[in-house]
Amino acid sequence: MVPTRLALEPRKFRVLVGTFVHSKSRSELEYIHDAAVAVDDGGTIVAMARGCENGNAAKDKVLRETGWTHRHVDLVECGEGQFFFPGFIDTHVHASQYPNAGIFGKSTLLDWLEKYTFPLESSLADLAKARKVYTACVRRCLSHGTTTAAYYATVDVPATNLLADLCLSLGQRAFVGRVCMDREELRPRHYGDESAESFLHNTQESIAYIKKIDPGFELISPILTPRFAPSCSSEGMKGLSAIHRREHLPIQTHVSENKGEIQLVADMYPESGSYAEVYDDHGLLTPKTILAHAVHITEKEARLISQRESKVSHCPCSNSSLTSGEARVRWMWEQGIEIGLGTDMSGGYSPSMLEAARQATLTSRHLAMRTEDQALREKTKLTVEEALYLATRGGARCLGLDDKVGGFEVGKQLDAQLIALGLVQDDGSRVGEDEDGHVDAGNVDVFGWETWDERIAKWLYNGDDRNTKKVWVKGRLVHSRR
Amino acid sequence: MVPTRLALEPRKFRVLVGTFVHSKSRSELEYIHDAAVAVDDGGTIVAMARGCENGNAAKDKVLRETGWTHRHVDLVECGEGQFFFPGFIDTHVHASQYPNAGIFGKSTLLDWLEKYTFPLESSLADLAKARKVYTACVRRCLSHGTTTAAYYATVDVPATNLLADLCLSLGQRAFVGRVCMDREELRPRHYGDESAESFLHNTQESIAYIKKIDPGFELISPILTPRFAPSCSSEGMKGLSAIHRREHLPIQTHVSENKGEIQLVADMYPESGSYAEVYDDHGLLTPKTILAHAVHITEKEARLISQRESKVSHCPCSNSSLTSGEARVRWMWEQGIEIGLGTDMSGGYSPSMLEAARQATLTSRHLAMRTEDQALREKTKLTVEEALYLATRGGARCLGLDDKVGGFEVGKQLDAQLIALGLVQDDGSRVGEDEDGHVDAGNVDVFGWETWDERIAKWLYNGDDRNTKKVWVKGRLVHSRR
Repeated sequence: MVPTRLALEPRKFRVLVGTFVHSKSRSELEYIHDAAVAVDDGGTIVAMARGCENGNAAKDKVLRETGWTHRHVDLVECGEGQFFFPGFIDTHVHASQYPNAGIFGKSTLLDWLEKYTFPLESSLADLAKARKVYTACVRRCLSHGTTTAAYYATVDVPATNLLADLCLSLGQRAFVGRVCMDREELRPRHYGDESAESFLHNTQESIAYIKKIDPGFELISPILTPRFAPSCSSEGMKGLSAIHRREHLPIQTHVSENKGEIQLVADMYPESGSYAEVYDDHGLLTPKTILAHAVHITEKEARLISQRESKVSHCPCSNSSLTSGEARVRWMWEQGIEIGLGTDMSGGYSPSMLEAARQATLTSRHLAMRTEDQALREKTKLTVEEALYLATRGGARCLGLDDKVGGFEVGKQLDAQLIALGLVQDDGSRVGEDEDGHVDAGNVDVFGWETWDERIAKWLYNGDDRNTKKVWVKGRLVHSRR
Repeated sequence: MVPTRLALEPRKFRVLVGTFVHSKSRSELEYIHDAAVAVDDGGTIVAMARGCENGNAAKDKVLRETGWTHRHVDLVECGEGQFFFPGFIDTHVHASQYPNAGIFGKSTLLDWLEKYTFPLESSLADLAKARKVYTACVRRCLSHGTTTAAYYATVDVPATNLLADLCLSLGQRAFVGRVCMDREELRPRHYGDESAESFLHNTQESIAYIKKIDPGFELISPILTPRFAPSCSSEGMKGLSAIHRREHLPIQTHVSENKGEIQLVADMYPESGSYAEVYDDHGLLTPKTILAHAVHITEKEARLISQRESKVSHCPCSNSSLTSGEARVRWMWEQGIEIGLGTDMSGGYSPSMLEAARQATLTSRHLAMRTEDQALREKTKLTVEEALYLATRGGARCLGLDDKVGGFEVGKQLDAQLIALGLVQDDGSRVGEDEDGHVDAGNVDVFGWETWDERIAKWLYNGDDRNTKKVWVKGRLVHSRR
C-alpha cells in the first residue's frame, strides 16, 4: 500500500570510505579520517580500518579482511566536506501529532492536550488519515537522519499497527507504542480506553501484531505506553507492569513535565510520595523504562530513577514551547541517570533531532542564567559534543540499543547518515551551484579554514535535513537526496 | 567584479496576485486574500486591490487603475499554499562575522570577542577574503528573505566600502557601518582605530564612499557605528555625535548585553549614571539610534531610551548562545520603546530572521518561566504574530523606514517575499516530489485542514529559506529558487 518509491533497496554488501565522526565519550567526539567500514548484507559492521594512509588504503584493508571484491560491494565514498555520523535516536516522539508541529499557541501541557492534541489523535482512527499522517511523519524523520524513533501512536489499535507497518516498510528502526489512557478525568469523551480491561487487551493486540510482522523485533519493537499517570488507572498500570515482567518489553511514559500536572498526580495518587513513585509503586520504574521530560523531579525522585536504572528523555524544544521548564541535564547525569534526547513532537515543534540537540545547548544556557555562581553557570552549559552524544549514544543506551547502534564499531549495525556541508568558493558562491545559483546544500557555509570541531559546531547550529544526504538503517539505504 | 549570475534584473512593472499577509498591529496579522498589488518600475506600490471576488478580478482592477496592460507587466501569482509576506528587516547583524556562525563554544561576550571575533574581523582587511565572506553573507541573508539589514562591517574602510558595493549590486537594502573602536583596553594590538582622529576620519571616508555610489541613500545608507562604549573614547563618541547632528545619519551600537560588560562600562565611565547614560552623555541617544540587546537595562535606562525615542534591536539567538540573558520585550514595549529583531550574527548562530523570530518566542517563554505569577507568565510570552511584527514593521520603525517598507500599502516600496509551504498528499508524499521523492519544499508540511493562523505558525516554527521562493527589494527580484 505504500507508494513504490518508498520501497526499500535490497540488502547489499557495502563499504563506506572516508571520515567517520562519533561520540567517544559524553564530552568528546572522535574523528576517524581515512577510514573504511565494511557492512554485511545483514547490516552488521564486520570490519573497520582506521589509521590508514588514505581512504583507498583503508578500503583495500577491509576488502582484504572480508574477502569481498570490489564487484560485489556498494562503495560509498565521502566527498569533500562530507563525513559519516551515527543516525539520530529520537527517544520521545508522538507520530500522531505530526500535523500539529509548530501549532501550540500560548498553551501549556494540560490545556494543550485538550485543545490541540486529543482532537488530532482521536481523528486518526480514520485509517486513511492515519496513513497520510504517519507516512509523512516517518519519511520526514528519516530525512532528518533519525534512524531510531520511540513513537507514541494513539489509542487506536489498527492505526497503531499501521504505524508499525509503515516503519517496517520505510525501513526505520522503531519502538511503536499504543497509547494507554483509561482515566476519564483527563481524556475527551470519545477518545481513550473505556476500562482497564480494554486498556490491557488493546495493548496486547498491538504487541501481537508487531510480533507477527517482525517476530524477532529486529527493526520494530512494541513498547508499553501508559500515556502518563494522570490518564491511567492503577489497575491499568499494574497490568502493564505484569506484561513487562512477562515479556521484557520496554516502557515509555512522561514524568514531571509541568507543575500543574505534578499537582494533579499528587491529588490523584495521594498514597504515593511523588510522581516518580507513582510509577514505582505500580512496577513501571524499570531499567527498560524511558521517562520523558523529568523537568521538575526532586532529588529524591532522581535518586529513585537512578536506583531503578530508568532512563530520561530530555525534550528541550517541547519544554520551551509549552513553557514547562528547563530540565537539569548535567544534574541528572551527576545523579547517575542516563539521558537521551527527544523531539517530543508536537509538544516540540520540530521532527529534527539536530534541532533538538541545538535547543538542548540553548536551553542549558537559559538554565545557566538562573545562577550567578560562575562555576555552576559554566558547568550547566551543554557543549556541542554533549548535545550530539545525547542524540546518538545517549539515546541508544536509553533504548537498550547500545550494543547495536550509536557509533561505528565492529559488531554494531550500520545506522548512520552521510553528512555534507556547503563549501564556499572564492567568489562567495557555493560549490555545486548551477547557473541560476541553485544548490541543495543547506545553510552551513564552510569557508575552508575551519577545524573539524568548528565544522561540527556549524552543522549543529545551522544544519538541517539538506545536510543529511544519505541515511542507512541496519545497513540499508532508507533515504537519500541529491 | 561580482559574478554575473548575481546581477540584478532590470526594473519592471510588476503585478502580484494572491494572498498577502502582513502585520496589522503588534498582535495581529492581516490576511488579504484575492488581492493584487501593482508595483511601478521604481519599486513603489502604486495600486492595491482587495476584497475582490478572486485574484483575476483583483488583477484586472489594478490594471484598470494603473492603465497598464498585461503585455507590459511581469505577473506573479501565488500558487496553492503560497502567500506574499513583507521582507524581513534585520536590525543588527555583523556581516564580517558570518564565517563564525555557530562557532562560539561556551564563551560569553568579552572572551568571545577576543577569541573568535576580533581575529576574524581583522583578517578581512584582506579584500579577497572580505569579498568571499561578504558575498556569501549578503546572498545568504537575501535567501532568508532579509530585504533590509543593518550591518556592522569592520574597522577597515576599503572592506566596509566593498560591503556597500556588494549590497548595492546584489540589491539588498542596507545600512553599512564602519566599526569604530579606538580604546586600547578592548581591542587587539593590530585591530582598531589608533586614535580618535582616525576613528572619525575613517568613518567619514566610508560615508563619503556610500554617498558616491548611492547619492540619495536609496538602497544603501551609512550608519554611524561606535562598536560599544567600552571600545570607544569619549572624544570619538562626541565626534560621531557631531557627524550625526550635521548629517542626520542613523547610529547603531550595543547596550547592556552582558553583566561583565556593564561593570566594565561603569568602571570606564564612572561619571555617567548608567550604560545608557554614557551614550546619552555623548549625544548618541537619538531617535535614529538603534541599541542592540538591552538585556539588563534598568527601569531608569528604559525611561531614558524611551524619552530619547531610541530603538532597541532584540537579538534572542545571540543572547541565548552567549548566555547573556533574556531581554524583556513586553516590558520594554510597555516602557514605550520601539523594538526590532536582530540576528546578531555571529553572536547569534544564524543569518535567518525566521530563526530569530522563532527564538524570540522561545526566549520569551524562558523569561516567563522566571515567575510563578500566572498572569505575568502569560503576558511575558510572545506570540507568533508579535514575533513576525518584530521581524517586519517593528524593524522598519527602528530603522526609520516605516513609511517605505514593512507592509503592503500604496506608496510603500515592494520589499517582499513569496512564501510557499509544502503540501502533503493523501499518500503522505509531497506535492511536487519527483520520482525519487525529491522536492525543494522545506520542512513545513501542510495537511490541508489548517487555518491560516496555523499555517503561519507552522512556517515560523519549521520554515527555512526553502519556503522563501522569491525576494523583491524596491520592486526588483533579488533572489529566487525553484
